[in-house]
Amino acid sequence: MPAPIALTMTAQNTAFQSITRLESNVRGYSRSFPVVFKQAFNATLVDTDGREYIDFLAGAGTLNYGHNNPLVKQALIDHLTNDGVMHGLDLATCAKIEFLETLDTLILKPRNLNYRVQFTGPTGTNAVEAAIKLARKQKKRSHVISFTNAYHGHSLGSLALTGNRYYHDEHYGSRNNVSFVPFDNYFGDGANTAKQLQTLLEDGSSGIPLPAAIIVETVQAEGGINVASNAWLQEISRICKDFDIAFIIDDIQTGNGRTGDFFSFESARLIPDIVCISKSIGGGLPLSLVLINPEMDGWQPGEHTGTFRGNQLAFVAGTALLKLWQEDSFKSTLKSNCSEAESKLVAIANDFDSISMRGRGMIRGLELPSGKLATEVCAACFTNGLIAETAGAQGEVVKFLAPLTIEADLLNSGMDILRSSIEDVFTSSHNLKSGN
Amino acid sequence: MPAPIALTMTAQNTAFQSITRLESNVRGYSRSFPVVFKQAFNATLVDTDGREYIDFLAGAGTLNYGHNNPLVKQALIDHLTNDGVMHGLDLATCAKIEFLETLDTLILKPRNLNYRVQFTGPTGTNAVEAAIKLARKQKKRSHVISFTNAYHGHSLGSLALTGNRYYHDEHYGSRNNVSFVPFDNYFGDGANTAKQLQTLLEDGSSGIPLPAAIIVETVQAEGGINVASNAWLQEISRICKDFDIAFIIDDIQTGNGRTGDFFSFESARLIPDIVCISKSIGGGLPLSLVLINPEMDGWQPGEHTGTFRGNQLAFVAGTALLKLWQEDSFKSTLKSNCSEAESKLVAIANDFDSISMRGRGMIRGLELPSGKLATEVCAACFTNGLIAETAGAQGEVVKFLAPLTIEADLLNSGMDILRSSIEDVFTSSHNLKSGN
Amino acid sequence: MPAPIALTMTAQNTAFQSITRLESNVRGYSRSFPVVFKQAFNATLVDTDGREYIDFLAGAGTLNYGHNNPLVKQALIDHLTNDGVMHGLDLATCAKIEFLETLDTLILKPRNLNYRVQFTGPTGTNAVEAAIKLARKQKKRSHVISFTNAYHGHSLGSLALTGNRYYHDEHYGSRNNVSFVPFDNYFGDGANTAKQLQTLLEDGSSGIPLPAAIIVETVQAEGGINVASNAWLQEISRICKDFDIAFIIDDIQTGNGRTGDFFSFESARLIPDIVCISKSIGGGLPLSLVLINPEMDGWQPGEHTGTFRGNQLAFVAGTALLKLWQEDSFKSTLKSNCSEAESKLVAIANDFDSISMRGRGMIRGLELPSGKLATEVCAACFTNGLIAETAGAQGEVVKFLAPLTIEADLLNSGMDILRSSIEDVFTSSHNLKSGN
Amino acid sequence: MPAPIALTMTAQNTAFQSITRLESNVRGYSRSFPVVFKQAFNATLVDTDGREYIDFLAGAGTLNYGHNNPLVKQALIDHLTNDGVMHGLDLATCAKIEFLETLDTLILKPRNLNYRVQFTGPTGTNAVEAAIKLARKQKKRSHVISFTNAYHGHSLGSLALTGNRYYHDEHYGSRNNVSFVPFDNYFGDGANTAKQLQTLLEDGSSGIPLPAAIIVETVQAEGGINVASNAWLQEISRICKDFDIAFIIDDIQTGNGRTGDFFSFESARLIPDIVCISKSIGGGLPLSLVLINPEMDGWQPGEHTGTFRGNQLAFVAGTALLKLWQEDSFKSTLKSNCSEAESKLVAIANDFDSISMRGRGMIRGLELPSGKLATEVCAACFTNGLIAETAGAQGEVVKFLAPLTIEADLLNSGMDILRSSIEDVFTSSHNLKSGN
Repeated sequence: MPAPIALTMTAQNTAFQSITRLESNVRGYSRSFPVVFKQAFNATLVDTDGREYIDFLAGAGTLNYGHNNPLVKQALIDHLTNDGVMHGLDLATCAKIEFLETLDTLILKPRNLNYRVQFTGPTGTNAVEAAIKLARKQKKRSHVISFTNAYHGHSLGSLALTGNRYYHDEHYGSRNNVSFVPFDNYFGDGANTAKQLQTLLEDGSSGIPLPAAIIVETVQAEGGINVASNAWLQEISRICKDFDIAFIIDDIQTGNGRTGDFFSFESARLIPDIVCISKSIGGGLPLSLVLINPEMDGWQPGEHTGTFRGNQLAFVAGTALLKLWQEDSFKSTLKSNCSEAESKLVAIANDFDSISMRGRGMIRGLELPSGKLATEVCAACFTNGLIAETAGAQGEVVKFLAPLTIEADLLNSGMDILRSSIEDVFTSSHNLKSGN
Repeated sequence: MPAPIALTMTAQNTAFQSITRLESNVRGYSRSFPVVFKQAFNATLVDTDGREYIDFLAGAGTLNYGHNNPLVKQALIDHLTNDGVMHGLDLATCAKIEFLETLDTLILKPRNLNYRVQFTGPTGTNAVEAAIKLARKQKKRSHVISFTNAYHGHSLGSLALTGNRYYHDEHYGSRNNVSFVPFDNYFGDGANTAKQLQTLLEDGSSGIPLPAAIIVETVQAEGGINVASNAWLQEISRICKDFDIAFIIDDIQTGNGRTGDFFSFESARLIPDIVCISKSIGGGLPLSLVLINPEMDGWQPGEHTGTFRGNQLAFVAGTALLKLWQEDSFKSTLKSNCSEAESKLVAIANDFDSISMRGRGMIRGLELPSGKLATEVCAACFTNGLIAETAGAQGEVVKFLAPLTIEADLLNSGMDILRSSIEDVFTSSHNLKSGN
Repeated sequence: MPAPIALTMTAQNTAFQSITRLESNVRGYSRSFPVVFKQAFNATLVDTDGREYIDFLAGAGTLNYGHNNPLVKQALIDHLTNDGVMHGLDLATCAKIEFLETLDTLILKPRNLNYRVQFTGPTGTNAVEAAIKLARKQKKRSHVISFTNAYHGHSLGSLALTGNRYYHDEHYGSRNNVSFVPFDNYFGDGANTAKQLQTLLEDGSSGIPLPAAIIVETVQAEGGINVASNAWLQEISRICKDFDIAFIIDDIQTGNGRTGDFFSFESARLIPDIVCISKSIGGGLPLSLVLINPEMDGWQPGEHTGTFRGNQLAFVAGTALLKLWQEDSFKSTLKSNCSEAESKLVAIANDFDSISMRGRGMIRGLELPSGKLATEVCAACFTNGLIAETAGAQGEVVKFLAPLTIEADLLNSGMDILRSSIEDVFTSSHNLKSGN
Repeated sequence: MPAPIALTMTAQNTAFQSITRLESNVRGYSRSFPVVFKQAFNATLVDTDGREYIDFLAGAGTLNYGHNNPLVKQALIDHLTNDGVMHGLDLATCAKIEFLETLDTLILKPRNLNYRVQFTGPTGTNAVEAAIKLARKQKKRSHVISFTNAYHGHSLGSLALTGNRYYHDEHYGSRNNVSFVPFDNYFGDGANTAKQLQTLLEDGSSGIPLPAAIIVETVQAEGGINVASNAWLQEISRICKDFDIAFIIDDIQTGNGRTGDFFSFESARLIPDIVCISKSIGGGLPLSLVLINPEMDGWQPGEHTGTFRGNQLAFVAGTALLKLWQEDSFKSTLKSNCSEAESKLVAIANDFDSISMRGRGMIRGLELPSGKLATEVCAACFTNGLIAETAGAQGEVVKFLAPLTIEADLLNSGMDILRSSIEDVFTSSHNLKSGN
């Protein structure tokens, strides 16, 4: 690890002002974490003053294998040095072929999965757009079903599938041909929402058109770390089969090992018709792809296209990382981190009456009594050297998304900061309420 | 330049089969150019057999500064070696700040342009989605006007602005809230289509709603290298001002020096409200941004977001290349290449009655009598070691999009191959028609 | 009652052939009741052979006061004889003024209701279109909530609010900006669907946009005689108030005394923002109107218009009939008919295990085990001289909609025919199943 | 003609106040003509004070055969007296059969037209809704083309086809799947707008999807009496054939003899696939129908339905009037009225530099320099005992729509009032401008 170059605080402030002067008001994370970051390695970020932060955000799930993974660094430097193709539209290149073969050999085949790969524009939203276009085209139906609290992206087709009103505007005209139905457990234990969906689809007068596709996240990440049970997911999958509906899993934030398995739907033993993958698949570099059941691969050549739909450096980085899935050391680290994360977070939830924990593997959340408290906890964490963000409709959930490869001591340190930040905020909040 | 590693043809064939087996039917360029590419430098691509190709496609305008530009290679290797942040969502990072300041200092300020920068998901279509969402939100109108033969991308919001029926399907439900009106010269010389548009907007009963935005390409690239005149663009700009409509220029394929100036609208002295930029801005790596008139920058924090909306390696690469715009040698090479490209293509058009040339700077096209002939010409070029593709509604245009930095001898060689390929195809076609 | 002119069966057949030859395939009732009707009075229809039928359909609720009510006949003949205005667009006419004043004095004021009246095109669907346009315009929101099994008409705005898939086609593009949520008791006793709706609206990430309006039928007629409880309706009304949503009741089939009260929502003590009225309001002649809370009456002059939006003859007929609501004899007949209808239908339901009864006042249904059986029952009824039709998603409900003014003996005779037809069909069906 | 019952002015004022108190703000005509009308015969309206008005509006084309045509009066009184069916949904009735046979025998067959008849809800807009739904369903395409300044009604499907922005609101979400293209002569003589449309449809990249239907008015009435030439209409018809597009003529205001022929498209020798008819077809009573080429009659039973879709009294009235088309006296009156109307209006246009005349048969307009002047002229006419209204995007056209059967002396008197009203307004306007 190279030594961070220490800059004076003044320099950082001056640099940061360029952001406020030149970047659009739309910028987000640089408001919560208002420093300039210079370096990073695995679960550590370093700002221009040399201050280090433990990263429980990990690029919102993009850095499952850590910042600047040495495998990625070396592979990229080699590729660049050898003048490997750096940009090639969707031409056949050595880098693409190696990526495809590695994905097939190390990930798909061992799981008995048979998919064709479509490289879409390197954004999650573009993978979703491609998936729903393909489903609509193949099923010859325009309607799609999405779930309460779903998050699938911001281009208009994906935005129509995204629940949060914050992202919508009356003038976008974006909500056509989509019905939202309740996610697992949305109305509490009394209501089986999969059964309700079946009733709506069976009833030719329900007002819910027969959809081309049902798109679902197995764990709603932005929606607040809402975990669908395997039983519920299996019911949704069966409904899709029974009604000839394309079953699409958006595994963009939950795939790439985030839940403990490579795909989030492995433990439910599902075989979706279409899977959307992005985030960590390119080792932190932009890459998105859609896995397609070959029987549904009805695209015409170039029918969904885009300039960066096969990011060569991301192929190189992704290939290096996919190979980790044959390493026992990687798998055992992942397993122990999942276990450690769960026990630490459960302990916090047990110690605070008003906090509950939810999640799976390395995607977890602490639900706090309000969005205000959760924001204050994240701010306190940052002051104490931990980066974590909120999720949920009201931002009431503190999200845990550390790299799968986080060092055991940093995981523990981060958890300690999280716990003490909660204590501070809750104490202060209680004192305020008590009039002290 | 490192020596290409020669593979046997058998090896290439085997590798290529992975593409046909594992990649979706949607793949496009690997059908026209069915070899496996291994290396690239400036205007040269090399396949796994060591065969070299002159590149007149240049990543469809993504490689304006050439493949593996040495400035880019060095900057990336340095960044990687120093563990610079490789992925950082939209956090403030050193790489982003340097990019923003370079863009402002070397590009915007010298042109008296004052814009805020929004980094969108790194696809052109996402920049377009952001632009029209912002316009709709700010103008509080849902309608947008696009032009015949326009191409703005494939996510549903952008696709609604894209003319080509090939990309549309009845079941996408994608064409809401958009009117298409004729581009410059669409109906030939007799009709001033800007004046027609003014008439339609003035007439409260025309059926064309007052739009939030008009989005235009100064040169329609995918649409067939249709060049709008400066006078027409100025009329469209004035109409936008008169009717309080956001004036959006999609400079994704035509920006970054492609027309000879950095922005394609400089010679028309326009100041668009919003400019969409992508392709070469990240030096071949995925990056997209929207330039926003500060008065229109009404975004709320995170209102349009995406994981890869600030690709750090692309910032590094882009910064290195933006600095070229202060180099006289770069500018003189660009100027001479523009001039040489024009004279060579005009000469071809002059020598063939049925061929006409159009375009500006380094984006040009030869219109052939049919899409079939154009496809045959491109195939012949490939056989002869030149990569070029078609454009236009019927694919009837052979497109010239070489790197701005192409070596003079390769430009000449490429033009020779193009001319001889046309001769071969036309002779063969004539012979076939003559029954010989 | 004038003597029916007896035509030979041959004559009727010849006449009927004109229907099959000249009328579109879209014709419906003349398929179920394939005779030519010549005359009608109160609850009796007479065909060209002089055969009489008891009418339990009553123009699908248009003839609440019976066919050719003598009050209507006399008023129309007087108006015609005196050259009263027969068509007057929406000019002020004596007939309109008398209608408005009668409606206000005899119906609205006694119920403490204060509404402005909009005369829409004389179709129920046009009243619904006007209602939702006004709500969208006033609330400045484009979304509307409708309920499972709702029926609001066939023009595209109303069709988007209508659940039954039979009426929809992929190519209509008609389902924009509408969410369907479960009607009262849709999922059975366990689920309070009003509370579920409240949850969806409170949750800013539910995917259900805040709507301009919620439109509801108090009894879903076409949907299968589904009765909303007063408690549920009150909850929906309160939700509308709490979220500033326009509360629209579609009382087209259930108003005009059909449920026993003039408006169907009287017993629930609701005051909707907008009420859609049609069917019997014009005494059998086309008339539709929208009652608007004066505070929501934000229409500009002529902003929603139509040629026949004030049918003068319907004003004349309607005025004559509204006056019945001050007659004790009319009210006592209505009361006794409601009571008799209920007891007879309950008795049938009690006698057949597989039949259940639902409904209120003079709008009731017998739910049979299948649509096939219900169709057979209606066919048997017709053979036996009774006109009744089916309703419900599968057509599984035999609907009772006799005129409110039906003679006691005809009501009894009709009920007898209904019971014996059910017995015949069930016996035959059972025998078939038993293999006899 | 019965003697009008003279009421005192006070009585009229009191009565009129009920309108302002009880009717919605949406009321229109009663603002321009603020008296209470009591009686009417042929081209004369009488208010409650006994004042008579010559009617150049004629129910906006609904009273082509005059107010209270004696044939209609007698037929209705007979039908009522005999207890003929007054409301019968879409059952087969004597009245419907007589209407269908009369229409077929006297109108369709003599013109070699072979159509099936669909009775829609009795509004013009419902006929349009049915027509476009059927076209979309049969052609399996969702897009429809309409023309600048088109007017097709106010329910959301028809409104999407209507140009005037006054009727649209951002929140209706109503303009989906429709492209507006220029009507005949829209851009003046230089541009052949039919040829332009052909270009747009031939160009697969024009952005105009291949439509299911093109819907056109031969004379745009509300749009300002814009007359399409026969040559242009024939080109549109041919385009429909060439591209397999349903050719729909909306003859609602221009049919029923208004242009001199029964159908407005007879002189152009067109055979539309679908024709929308309403207004005068029911003799002033609500009736609408769609004529369907039998090959396109793909409706399922009841697929487009509505309570009043076969208004029995309108059948009776319409049948009586259709028989006029075999009367020489009717035809010669129509011919001479057309001729007289043209010569009088041409004379006015000739005498005023700033006025031009347009129209055909008995549908004509005087285009004035501004909407303000046209409104003042209509107000002056009303003061002088003539009812006429404005049309056009700015209301700049004074419309002539007198009954086809208007008495020669009333036609002359009306024209005199019109001329003198123009003189008064123009003189006054000129004086005002001159500062006198």
